[in-house]
Formats: sequence, structure tokens, C-alpha cells
Amino acid sequence: MDKATFDRGLEIRKSVIGREFVEKAFASADDFNRPLQELVTEYCWGAVWGREELPKKTRSFLNLGMLAALNRPHELKVHVKGALRNGLTRDEIREVFLQVAIYCGVPAAVDSFRIAREAFAEYEKEK
Amino acid sequence: MDKATFDRGLEIRKSVIGREFVEKAFASADDFNRPLQELVTEYCWGAVWGREELPKKTRSFLNLGMLAALNRPHELKVHVKGALRNGLTRDEIREVFLQVAIYCGVPAAVDSFRIAREAFAEYEKEK
Amino acid sequence: MDKATFDRGLEIRKSVIGREFVEKAFASADDFNRPLQELVTEYCWGAVWGREELPKKTRSFLNLGMLAALNRPHELKVHVKGALRNGLTRDEIREVFLQVAIYCGVPAAVDSFRIAREAFAEYEKEK
Amino acid sequence: MDKATFDRGLEIRKSVIGREFVEKAFASADDFNRPLQELVTEYCWGAVWGREELPKKTRSFLNLGMLAALNRPHELKVHVKGALRNGLTRDEIREVFLQVAIYCGVPAAVDSFRIAREAFAEYEKEK
Amino acid sequence: MDKATFDRGLEIRKSVIGREFVEKAFASADDFNRPLQELVTEYCWGAVWGREELPKKTRSFLNLGMLAALNRPHELKVHVKGALRNGLTRDEIREVFLQVAIYCGVPAAVDSFRIAREAFAEYEKEK
Amino acid sequence: MDKATFDRGLEIRKSVIGREFVEKAFASADDFNRPLQELVTEYCWGAVWGREELPKKTRSFLNLGMLAALNRPHELKVHVKGALRNGLTRDEIREVFLQVAIYCGVPAAVDSFRIAREAFAEYEKEK
Repeated sequence: MDKATFDRGLEIRKSVIGREFVEKAFASADDFNRPLQELVTEYCWGAVWGREELPKKTRSFLNLGMLAALNRPHELKVHVKGALRNGLTRDEIREVFLQVAIYCGVPAAVDSFRIAREAFAEYEKEK
Repeated sequence: MDKATFDRGLEIRKSVIGREFVEKAFASADDFNRPLQELVTEYCWGAVWGREELPKKTRSFLNLGMLAALNRPHELKVHVKGALRNGLTRDEIREVFLQVAIYCGVPAAVDSFRIAREAFAEYEKEK
Repeated sequence: MDKATFDRGLEIRKSVIGREFVEKAFASADDFNRPLQELVTEYCWGAVWGREELPKKTRSFLNLGMLAALNRPHELKVHVKGALRNGLTRDEIREVFLQVAIYCGVPAAVDSFRIAREAFAEYEKEK
Repeated sequence: MDKATFDRGLEIRKSVIGREFVEKAFASADDFNRPLQELVTEYCWGAVWGREELPKKTRSFLNLGMLAALNRPHELKVHVKGALRNGLTRDEIREVFLQVAIYCGVPAAVDSFRIAREAFAEYEKEK
Repeated sequence: MDKATFDRGLEIRKSVIGREFVEKAFASADDFNRPLQELVTEYCWGAVWGREELPKKTRSFLNLGMLAALNRPHELKVHVKGALRNGLTRDEIREVFLQVAIYCGVPAAVDSFRIAREAFAEYEKEK
Repeated sequence: MDKATFDRGLEIRKSVIGREFVEKAFASADDFNRPLQELVTEYCWGAVWGREELPKKTRSFLNLGMLAALNRPHELKVHVKGALRNGLTRDEIREVFLQVAIYCGVPAAVDSFRIAREAFAEYEKEK
């Protein structure tokens, strides 16, 4: 493990996903899933999100498009909330999912709009 | 067909994909694929790309992420060249595909980098 | 928007998905998802389902196969009920999902059969 | 192996895919891929295509939709030619792929139209 | 149907998925899904799992990787429990899903770890 | 970057993919794709393949199943050759792709068998 990359990743992950969520993920980790938590924090959040060549807002746009295409509703909800934290407006999120309708198909868009509305409601409560 | 939406779509499509490419697509269209050309021009390029709520550069970012996730190499190459026309730098495109490695997996990223290099070479020649 | 295409789409959508479902979707729409409702009604239901070159029954067959392949359970359930409205029998729906087992794999078929049974039960209640 | 199912499958496979193609596939099979040829002939073509509950034309419609969604260009080309043998017209095939544009996304449709045109040309030559 | 293949498949299916689960599946089968139960038992469990060229443990490894990639959570849970029955340890299952993170992307791994933990808990109760 | 993880990854990558292939990939890397080469070597090959909890042969089995499911022919060919280097026999590779037929569908298996035969031929020449 590269400690500096891990630490940078941990800070970014907390700022995007929420400090409480991330701390709980590590606190509840056991021998089974701790290696995943560590890999994701270093590799995903440190080595890639930690690169300064793209602003976090652009990375959130990308994630919304990719996660809708990949059909991963749990992660999509997490990253809709992350997108709000990174400054995307609801109008911008709507535009992403209209573009999803064209490129990934209408069912991908219908699912994404439903998940986004659930994410907005959760985000309001968590604030 | 909504003529105004179609016309706006045709202009945007030409500006992103290249005037020559689009004119050739319509010129070579026959009864089999003309309805696709018209549907795509009106809805994809007019009704969605034509919305002003997102800049074209952001729409290009989204397309690169979605097309890499969807595993559609022909369209990905078209839209890497479109992204260059919309002002993305090669460094920004590299960052997109590094993020693809994380979210869509390493094979999706390896394919996307190879296609991007082919697209860069074609773009140079077409200029 | 092309008003005639939208109106034709709205009628077809109601006839396939159910008048109540569609009216509720528009009644509960807000600024966030109204543009999706409008796009889907015009583009999906008007511009494509509205074409008379294929009977609605054939379009339902296609949707069952595509939605099973695309792994979109919510939309699949909606379209199993739509298929019943368009005159497919349960035996025909079973045949579709046996063919799904071969081409999309056994897990896609197992999921589709489970969703179909849920859809049949809901359809009975809604009648 | 159930010999009757295999034999029925072999006949159906030849009638849809072309006698020459299938005979060549078995003639060139070696220890590596003969088990696949046998499995596909018995289960895919015998146990499922051999069921009489759906006409072959409907099964071809389903395959075009599923293979476009699954993003399998080689098999899609084989089954566009099979669809022509089963009596689908080019207009019907066009309608399938317009519906693909809506449900699987525009890139899936663009790829499918390109493959269909290649298949039409090969089919003309092979006749 | 090949009776010997079906019978061998039924035994293997019960040994991997659980006798009670399989008996319940057949007992509750109706005209709609009985053909699927029969096809899956003969073709999936008899004709492929019944081949002795790979040990069941290796087949379980493969299924975990494929089902994570295919994004089929219900079947993935069934096969995590099957993998435990076939002798995989939780450490080995963890390694599979870390490799999923690299090849299928982080969201596929996050979903798979969550499902695995649910499967472990169910497995304990069912013992 | 963690230098020890990168170095371990580089050695494993060379042993699986071929020394010449990997050295050429780094030699031809430019500012555009060098970050991908480094990320893949450190995380994919060092941080995951470098874990000793699974033998390389098992990791090759997993990759064949996942890459067939993910529909990534270029990477699949690379990893069929890697599987041969890791000691899988052609009979074992055949068994993997028969199982792919069941879980990912017949078209995925047909594509995988074709790619495997190409990979076998290339492997013979490269020896």
C-alpha cells in the first residue's frame, strides 16, 4: 500500500460520499471485506479521483453516466448524492439522465430517474 | 417530425461529428436506414444535444464514459473525435478512460485507450 | 415537440401500459422528471411504437426479449403486463423466456420467469 | 444426448442458418469445439427452436432484438441472414432495429443497421 | 429429454443448490415454469455441470466470476451458497471478488461483497 | 506509487502475458497511455494478482469466465494465451467456455470458442 495515496483517497472519499458513511464502512469491516475497503480507498479514490487533471464535478458527471450504463443501482444512488455534494444541480443531473435515455436506452433512464428521486430524498434527510 | 428540432439537430450533429460525415450518411441512406438517420438527428441531436442546460463539452465527457461502459467501439471512436471537436484535450480524454478503468474494469479501459489512439490518428488526417 | 407524434404516443402508451399508470406518471411529474415523461411519450411511444410497420404484438415480443437481455427488471415487469394487454398468452411469454435461457443465459431466464409470475399476479389484481 | 432432439435440432439449424454453413461447422470441428457444436445443436436448436409453441418467424424477431441488446455482432449477422430465410422482410428488420434504438440506445441501433446491411449483401451473394 | 442426463443433473443440482430448494422448485412448478425447471436441470446441471473434466470447485469459482460480471444478484447469492457447499472458503470467495473489482469494476465488486455477506448469513441459518 | 507492489506486478504481468509484450507496451507508451500502463501494473497485477491467496491457475480460470461474460474479445485473447502459460490445458479452456454457454448464453460461447482457436494458433507461433 502507498500510504500517501491511501490517505489522500480517504479524504476525497469522505468529502464525496460522506464522512459518516465511510467511517462506518471501515468500522464494520471484517477480515472478509477489509481488503476491498482498502483497495477501493487507495486505487479508486486515491490513485484516480486524487488526480487533479479533472475537477471533482466532472468526475461526478462521468460516474452518473457510467453507473447508469453499467446498471448498478446501489452505486448510482451513492453517486447521485456524491454529485450533489460535488456541486451538481438537480437540473444538471436531469440532463445527464436524459442523455442516458438516448445512448443507453429508455429503460436505463427510467431506472436512473427513479433512483435519483430516492437519492434526493435521502440527501435531504441526511443534511 | 418537428422540423425545427430536426434542423437544430442536424446543425449540432454536423458540428460535433463533422459536416462531411453527416452529409455522406444522408446521401448514402436508402429506404432501409433513412428512418434511423432521421430519428437520430431529431431526437438524439435535436431533442437532447439541443438542450442548452449542459455545454457540449460536458455532453462529450458523458458520451465517452457511457460508450466505454456500453462497449460500443465504433461509436466510441466517432465520439472521441467529436470530443476533440468540442474542445476536450487529450489529457482530459486520458483522465476519462483512467476513471473507466476503475468503474467499468481494466479491460474496458484497455480497449478505450486503443480506440482513442486510433481516433487521434484519424482526426489528424481528417483535419 | 411534434404535437401529433406526442398525442399518438400518449394514446398508444395508455393502451399498452394502462391509462391509470400513465395519467399518474404525468400527474406526479415535477420539473425534474417531466422532460423524461415527454421525451419517452413522443420518441418511444409516438415515433417508434406509433409506426404501423409492426403490429403491437410483435413489438411486445421484442421488448420481452430485449428487456430480459438488458437486465432491467422494473421495465420488464411493466412490459410483461403490457404484453398481456397486447394479446400475448402466458404460453407465448414462457416461450420467449425459454429462448432467453439459450441466448442470454440461464440466470437471465430465471430472473425473467420470476418477474413474469409477479407481473401475472399484479395483472390479475389490476383488472 | 437425446438423439431425436439432436436430429430435430440439426434439421432446424440447417434450415435457418444454411445447410452448407452447418455442415462445414461439423466437418471442421475438432476435439476442442465439437462438444460446443453438439450442445448448441441439441439444446439451442432442438430443445428450444424445436418447440412448436412459437413460429420460427417470431423466434427470429426475438433473436434480432436479443442479439442487438447483447452486443454480439458475429451472431447478429448470422441471425439477420437467418431471419431473411425465415421470411422476415427488410422492412420488418428495419423496424426491429428502430425499436432497438429506443430500448438499447442509439449506439446499439447504429451498430445493428451497419451489420444488417453487411448481412443483406452476403445473403445476396450466397443465394 | 435424455433421462440419464436429467437424472445426473438433478443429483448434482441438489448437491450444489440444496436438496430442499430444488425439491420445492419442482413441487411449486406449474405449466408456466416447469419447462424451465426441466431445461435447466438437464442442460445446465446434467449436460455441463455433469461433465467430469472440471471439478465442482472450479465450476463454482467460474460461476462467481461470471455472475458478478453478468450483474445477476439473485443467482449470485444462490451460487455463493453453492460455492460454500462445494468447499470454497470465505477467503477464496473474497479473492474472487477482489479480482472482480479489477476486471468488472469497483461497483460490481461492492455489490458482490454485499451479496456474499447476505449469502453467508443465510447459509449459517440453513445449516 | 508503491514501488514494491509495482515491481511485483511487473514480474507477474510478464510471466502471464509474456515478457516481450509487456516490455513493448512500456517502450511504446507515451504521455497519453503511460498512466494506464502504470495503474494496471501496480493495481491489477501487483495488488490483486500479487495476492497469494489464490494460485495463478485459478485466477486464469476466473479471467476466462469474466472476460467472456464482459464481451471483451481483445483481452479475452490475451488471457487465453495467459491461461496456457499458467498451465491450463485446452480441455480445461473448452470446459470453461461450455459453462459460458449456459450462464452467459450461446452467442458468448460461440465468440469465445472462435477467439480461443485464434489464441491457440498465435500461441504456437510465439513459442
